[in-house]
Amino acid sequence: MRRIFCIIWLCIVSIGVINAEDGSRLWLRFQSCNTATLPNFTAINGNKGSFALQQFQEAWSLMTGNNLPERNLSAGHTLLIGTSKNREIKKVVKAKELKELGTEGYIIRTVMQGNKMVTLVASLGEGGLLYGVYHLLRLIQTGTDLLSLQISEKPSYDIRILNHWDNLNGTVERGYAGYSIWQWDKLPEVISPRYKEYARANASIGINGTVLNNVNASPDILTTSYLQKVKIIADILRPYHIKVYLSVNFSSPKIVGGLSDSDPLNPQVQKWWHEKATEIYRLIPDFGGFLVKANSEGQPGPMDYGRTHSDGANMLADALKPYGGIVMWRAFVYNPSPEDRAKQAYLEFKPLDGAFRNNVIIQVKNGPVDFQPREPFSPLFGAIQQTAIMPELQITQEYLGFSNHLVFLAPQWKEFLESDTHCKGENSTVAKSTDGTIYPHTHSAIAGVANIGLDTNWCGHHFAQANWYAFGRLAWDHTLTAEEIATEWIRMTFSNEPKFEKPVKEMMLQSWETAVDYMMPLGLHHIFAWDHHYGPEPWCNIPGARADWLPPYYHNAGTDGIGFDRTTTGSDAVSQYYSPLREQFNNLESCPEELLLWFHHVPWNHSMKNGRTLWEELCYRYDGGVQRVREFQKIWDRVEPFVDSDRFRHVQSRLRIQSRDAVWWKDACLLYFQTFSKKPIPYDIERPVHELEELQQIKLELKHHN
Amino acid sequence: MRRIFCIIWLCIVSIGVINAEDGSRLWLRFQSCNTATLPNFTAINGNKGSFALQQFQEAWSLMTGNNLPERNLSAGHTLLIGTSKNREIKKVVKAKELKELGTEGYIIRTVMQGNKMVTLVASLGEGGLLYGVYHLLRLIQTGTDLLSLQISEKPSYDIRILNHWDNLNGTVERGYAGYSIWQWDKLPEVISPRYKEYARANASIGINGTVLNNVNASPDILTTSYLQKVKIIADILRPYHIKVYLSVNFSSPKIVGGLSDSDPLNPQVQKWWHEKATEIYRLIPDFGGFLVKANSEGQPGPMDYGRTHSDGANMLADALKPYGGIVMWRAFVYNPSPEDRAKQAYLEFKPLDGAFRNNVIIQVKNGPVDFQPREPFSPLFGAIQQTAIMPELQITQEYLGFSNHLVFLAPQWKEFLESDTHCKGENSTVAKSTDGTIYPHTHSAIAGVANIGLDTNWCGHHFAQANWYAFGRLAWDHTLTAEEIATEWIRMTFSNEPKFEKPVKEMMLQSWETAVDYMMPLGLHHIFAWDHHYGPEPWCNIPGARADWLPPYYHNAGTDGIGFDRTTTGSDAVSQYYSPLREQFNNLESCPEELLLWFHHVPWNHSMKNGRTLWEELCYRYDGGVQRVREFQKIWDRVEPFVDSDRFRHVQSRLRIQSRDAVWWKDACLLYFQTFSKKPIPYDIERPVHELEELQQIKLELKHHN
Repeated sequence: MRRIFCIIWLCIVSIGVINAEDGSRLWLRFQSCNTATLPNFTAINGNKGSFALQQFQEAWSLMTGNNLPERNLSAGHTLLIGTSKNREIKKVVKAKELKELGTEGYIIRTVMQGNKMVTLVASLGEGGLLYGVYHLLRLIQTGTDLLSLQISEKPSYDIRILNHWDNLNGTVERGYAGYSIWQWDKLPEVISPRYKEYARANASIGINGTVLNNVNASPDILTTSYLQKVKIIADILRPYHIKVYLSVNFSSPKIVGGLSDSDPLNPQVQKWWHEKATEIYRLIPDFGGFLVKANSEGQPGPMDYGRTHSDGANMLADALKPYGGIVMWRAFVYNPSPEDRAKQAYLEFKPLDGAFRNNVIIQVKNGPVDFQPREPFSPLFGAIQQTAIMPELQITQEYLGFSNHLVFLAPQWKEFLESDTHCKGENSTVAKSTDGTIYPHTHSAIAGVANIGLDTNWCGHHFAQANWYAFGRLAWDHTLTAEEIATEWIRMTFSNEPKFEKPVKEMMLQSWETAVDYMMPLGLHHIFAWDHHYGPEPWCNIPGARADWLPPYYHNAGTDGIGFDRTTTGSDAVSQYYSPLREQFNNLESCPEELLLWFHHVPWNHSMKNGRTLWEELCYRYDGGVQRVREFQKIWDRVEPFVDSDRFRHVQSRLRIQSRDAVWWKDACLLYFQTFSKKPIPYDIERPVHELEELQQIKLELKHHN
Repeated sequence: MRRIFCIIWLCIVSIGVINAEDGSRLWLRFQSCNTATLPNFTAINGNKGSFALQQFQEAWSLMTGNNLPERNLSAGHTLLIGTSKNREIKKVVKAKELKELGTEGYIIRTVMQGNKMVTLVASLGEGGLLYGVYHLLRLIQTGTDLLSLQISEKPSYDIRILNHWDNLNGTVERGYAGYSIWQWDKLPEVISPRYKEYARANASIGINGTVLNNVNASPDILTTSYLQKVKIIADILRPYHIKVYLSVNFSSPKIVGGLSDSDPLNPQVQKWWHEKATEIYRLIPDFGGFLVKANSEGQPGPMDYGRTHSDGANMLADALKPYGGIVMWRAFVYNPSPEDRAKQAYLEFKPLDGAFRNNVIIQVKNGPVDFQPREPFSPLFGAIQQTAIMPELQITQEYLGFSNHLVFLAPQWKEFLESDTHCKGENSTVAKSTDGTIYPHTHSAIAGVANIGLDTNWCGHHFAQANWYAFGRLAWDHTLTAEEIATEWIRMTFSNEPKFEKPVKEMMLQSWETAVDYMMPLGLHHIFAWDHHYGPEPWCNIPGARADWLPPYYHNAGTDGIGFDRTTTGSDAVSQYYSPLREQFNNLESCPEELLLWFHHVPWNHSMKNGRTLWEELCYRYDGGVQRVREFQKIWDRVEPFVDSDRFRHVQSRLRIQSRDAVWWKDACLLYFQTFSKKPIPYDIERPVHELEELQQIKLELKHHN
């Protein structure tokens, strides 16, 4: 009797393990596909032994419990996966078609050959084939009918890359999902199964590069012993069409190489980098290149030796050039300066336009300050014309509630990518000015600062996975809408049930504007708590700290009003934009209200377009944010029947935190700004429940990293 | 120049001090009366040197800066304050009229005598005169027209008494307004000015007795050294027509007197009490008597010696009888017993009805358990017929948010006093069964457990003053409505401005039901945090603790439902009530929903009168409480222009705490009860923002006393 119980118990536990919805499978939940909607494939064919074909079989067997029989086209519905060299492919797809899509592009098509139905995935290269297979799998996961497929795709950007701000000691700067997935201390001996899962997940969304270590880089990464560890990772990622890159410390020649300095014009230094490149490429023949943060926030750089950014970047580019490597040189320069921080990157980099090698890409954060909840686009986009320039987006929610707040970032990134720089007249969007459309360069690229860690669900918050997903999808195709991306992700990650999809999507699509409203509406920025950036500290004043590290520098609230005057009579940051944008931003009346306090210092009584005063509108925005988070809670609780209990409870719990935090933000900001506005909060708004003094006492014990 | 500044500064400071609205003046803010609405008195006359007349002059001079000239009736408007012996009074008021009102009753009347207008205050005794003067002052403070006054009043209860649960070491059990106002360690040498202010405030609302020390009484109070301190206080209170009483420890003969026991049938013990009474009355000739908590919660009592409550009470009564003193014997008996706690007082006292001396009054808490947010009335009311019985109300908010929550208690007390016991058929209200109407006894009385402490504003929360005020007013006249009392109090304490009075009154009148809703709706009771009773702990389970000290004893939640079955098939507590009440309570359908879970264990799916299930209704009640506190915040913020900033900020701050606490209560109770109901919280209700586990960790460091 006891034995039977044991067996039953084991069965239950096993089922539990197999079906455990802990988020570890991300959007690749093949086991959980609705078998009723699966295509009726009867056979598979194509490039024998191709990695892409293997990947399909693996997924298919998870969906159905069986591999597809590998045989020639026959009666029924055959799946054909092959490159342009494949005989069967050649019959259906013209070589020219595939050539136009490049090695990463692909075609998916369902055709009738006599009485035989064939669905094919075709590409010029193995990379494209892999992406095509994951596209097909996505269609299957989301329950799409395959009968009339006519898909051809190629990526928006050549290089679609994650930046890990992971330190070699396992911590992650601005990481909120546990320690680094790169377990350097165990490499090269112990290889985490996560490396492969990571590669597969990235491949499935088209990411083809990864920078393994923090931009605040330890020189150790270039030591031989670390490079041998890097090689192991590179070997694992390679089949998934992902190249490895490294962040390098500009002082490496001196620190690691023992040279007297790291001056880029010092031939010894140049030699050291050449030799280091050779060493790397011997280990990793397809190594991607370097990412560099130089002369910013205390990091070393060429200016330490009186040289320029281009001197530094070009020296590295020259070392990598023979092997096809690139240098991503960050424009996030942020050293003490009397100049408006928002202007600094432009002031330093605009004069250097054209001075860089063609294997250098300037990597520019989306906004001119620092990944704020909402910023205008950086004026470097469109302005840098003769050098490749790549956007850097922040997937990890440093400024958006860590892994506690549900904030879907695709709408933010879309707003950024579709911002019109006017660099070549109307419709010169950021996307077009970086993807090669307006300024063709050797490389186009886009980077996202990863939100990945050792947490079982990878990203801390189940919905933070959607941001990793969205980054990959937008890097692949920046014309996708946020809604399309949300639809795909929800269906794959949770459910194809419309009663789930519709409200959850609505919540996701509203979530970014909601967070902006309860944190920093109307163009407010950087009023975060000191150092860790979780929660509000608009009053923050650390004696002796740099002014531009402190919130009052940015909000500039006084009895006369609030906001940073960046007009022509202020810091004149507006003039870094093209006409007619600069005039639009410069004029209080034409400036978009969403950016009002970014560009203007505005009287509290200023009349907004809806007739409210600025102060009133600020109050309604903060309160609206709070109310919408409460709506999110309702939405989530209502869909409980359609979610597994583990993820339901997890997300529910985070939404509760978010709801409390939103009230905290609202109370802190309104009560603090009220000390300047000296006006009542409109009386129909829910009242604060905290005391300003009490909120000012809050000091969270949070670090820069996990 | 500097000197001028100093003078100006001093002026400003002085004005500040005079007009400081720190709540210390309670409802007696004569300085702040609107001089425009003052009556046009031209002279004052009456009993020369009468204390009542002095009190009027004092108030008048605070209102106007001048005394009224004391002269005979003359042209103009004379105020006449006198007893029935006064010649001028005799001219206008018949002796018989005054006699009918007793020594505490009074007449206020405005009459024309030829061309002379006279407003008179008349009474049989000095006490009544004092009350009449404060009534007149109240009319003046509230801006009432005096021209057609026809007032005659006499008190509902003979003895209107405060119980201070103040310990001799200065702490106050269940006190939330600072340490005790009775500074025993400084007496008899140092006399706090507060004693006199306390006396005046009580006199102004008709309170004529006070028990200075905690019912959990230290025997020390009966030592000669303490009695000498008591005498000082009694001397100060005497002109204000307030008698002093003491709580006594039943073991005093043994502990203070050194006797071998305190057995009430021991002649030595009886002798000791007689001698102690003699000693007391030598010091305090008008000493009121004793209050006794015996054989309850570990206190000693006659049952320690196999005697009865009546044996104990009568012995003390015999000792006090020669001097006119009384014994108030508490029916709050609460010792370990397998019987439903709600039944115990009745079971112990009902059989003793008639066994007590006529100078004993049984003091019974309003409800059968313990000052819960809402209880049915104790079944002892109406049931005890041959012995005087007095209600004990709790002014201090032990179970209603301490001095943090705004809860106006008059509606609760009115509901209690107007409850129909049916002891002599319909309309046998609790009030009528205790005030002498139904059962005439030598004494009628009502007690309130004070909420007074050393805090500048006396009661911690400015609005808690209203409860002290309301207790006095209802003890004087239990036919007053809660609204009438609120109107008086608001006008005197804050403002006669209708824009203030109306919304604030609305808030006050809703506040008790609101607190019931966010704490313990539908008859739930005693699900408070362990020991200190601040905040929710429905899950509380202290190993080894008495069951009836623990919330699950009272809410009895399970998967089958929630509530305490006190029907005839349960604990049968219903049978302690008269018909038809017992049948009404016993029947699930006829039981008032406000008391449903007090009397019934009800399935979660039970259909309420509004069509909701019990579980749904519970959710809506808790949420409704939260939403209404938020409305209170709005109401208060809107009246800011009509309040001084000190009190405005103070109350605003407390309302913020109350608002957070209400959410805490709602989340704790709903999330906990949901573990039994296993039903979703209706989706249109604002979702919880806390985790149950997190709330279960909260352990406040609060004591039983300040």
